[in-house]
Amino acid sequence: MSEQYIGVFDSGVGGLTVFKSIMESMPSENLLYFGDTAHVPYGTKSEKQIRKFVLNDVAFLHRFPLKAIVIACNTADSVAGQLLRETYPEEKIFGVIEPAAAEAVRSTVNKKIGIMATKATVASKAYDRAILAKDPTMDLISVPCPLLVPLVENGRFEKDDPVVRMVLSEYLEPLIRYGVDTIVLGCTHYPLLKEAIQSLAPEIHLISSSDAAAKVLKEAFPAEEGQGIRRYFVSDDRQQFADNASRFIPDLQGEIEQVTLE
Amino acid sequence: MSEQYIGVFDSGVGGLTVFKSIMESMPSENLLYFGDTAHVPYGTKSEKQIRKFVLNDVAFLHRFPLKAIVIACNTADSVAGQLLRETYPEEKIFGVIEPAAAEAVRSTVNKKIGIMATKATVASKAYDRAILAKDPTMDLISVPCPLLVPLVENGRFEKDDPVVRMVLSEYLEPLIRYGVDTIVLGCTHYPLLKEAIQSLAPEIHLISSSDAAAKVLKEAFPAEEGQGIRRYFVSDDRQQFADNASRFIPDLQGEIEQVTLE
Repeated sequence: MSEQYIGVFDSGVGGLTVFKSIMESMPSENLLYFGDTAHVPYGTKSEKQIRKFVLNDVAFLHRFPLKAIVIACNTADSVAGQLLRETYPEEKIFGVIEPAAAEAVRSTVNKKIGIMATKATVASKAYDRAILAKDPTMDLISVPCPLLVPLVENGRFEKDDPVVRMVLSEYLEPLIRYGVDTIVLGCTHYPLLKEAIQSLAPEIHLISSSDAAAKVLKEAFPAEEGQGIRRYFVSDDRQQFADNASRFIPDLQGEIEQVTLE
Repeated sequence: MSEQYIGVFDSGVGGLTVFKSIMESMPSENLLYFGDTAHVPYGTKSEKQIRKFVLNDVAFLHRFPLKAIVIACNTADSVAGQLLRETYPEEKIFGVIEPAAAEAVRSTVNKKIGIMATKATVASKAYDRAILAKDPTMDLISVPCPLLVPLVENGRFEKDDPVVRMVLSEYLEPLIRYGVDTIVLGCTHYPLLKEAIQSLAPEIHLISSSDAAAKVLKEAFPAEEGQGIRRYFVSDDRQQFADNASRFIPDLQGEIEQVTLE
């Protein structure tokens, strides 16, 4: 079934960190990315609204033959992941939260795990549920980090950017004080800040939900020969997406198409 | 025609600075606010998408008898103001850009005016056109300030907040170096940052597009006795809007209703 796609979706460009990890670890797969850039960001919207957007996103992906769907957005996964799995029980649906939670539990030694995420993801308590289901003795602390997505989307993620350092120091302070040895980067934008975060918290193990999700996906599908197709779709302007995307995937190849949903 | 409303709209909560100025200066008017919170922010979307949203916003306002429409968002006014006036030639449509441009021209002594606004507003060059149409000898410099809306929306606008000071200093630096004596706060979120900006640039005259718009509106309608109605409508969650709105209008009165567009 070589004409089938792995369909990856997100509210905007953040999911490209997941897409990049999948591209690198599964080069033979046909990959399709949908960014709902007309409605970005999801992290500040209500749960009801996010569910509506996510159902539209997946309805769009279903215009193509799919072998799997990847929810490449922590907010979408935390708020609408269960709904999607119930709506499409026959589909193979992969998220970012379950893989990152599993890797955090494997990583921690002192059982103190910090979670950095959007307001909506923190409010959903999806990481708490996923981690405590694996090991109820884990000690968790979550910090909503609402300024990180705007910073990254504006190209502000370098470790020597004073604004980035000041904002990150503020968000990291309670996590460091709590004594966590592992932090989940619970938003697909945050891998771009990994170097900056690591420089401010050199002893802490950082878990990228994007890398964790790609690893789980790779385990599910046997490696094949060849080079797969890459296609990109967005719900707002193509050029704007191309400009933003270059921060996530410098050599983004494949055409970008604008589509209208509904 | 006392049952008529002045309809005010914005992408979210920012337009409440305009609404507040109108409430204070025109207490007898019936005022209606619509915040398109399902699609906030507009400032990062494409022009085509913004125009689509704005036409939907105004179509919603037309469910009510209107005496005037106020575009309480610089991005919407700069990108879709002309389209709205062409689409509804019979309506009295008020924006924020024309009033703020006029006040800036009246205010400046050295003819050097700075404009702080969203990326979309700066890219539209709407302020340049409006100011130079009044006086082509004006010397203008514009700075896109993409981090200010996320800061304000997260309650970060106090003048002693170190992140606010650092970000503002960065945006103000080219304006101060250019020698402007007047700065247009070309986004309806920015009046909340006025005190912080003034403390970093004490010699510069700050023009609030929100206050300027309310002044022009007041001149158009004669003062009446009595107390008008206030109604609020949003396209996403009511509670979330109420929480965010409290930063703009601490004692917001009147009911908030959620509506579905399209």
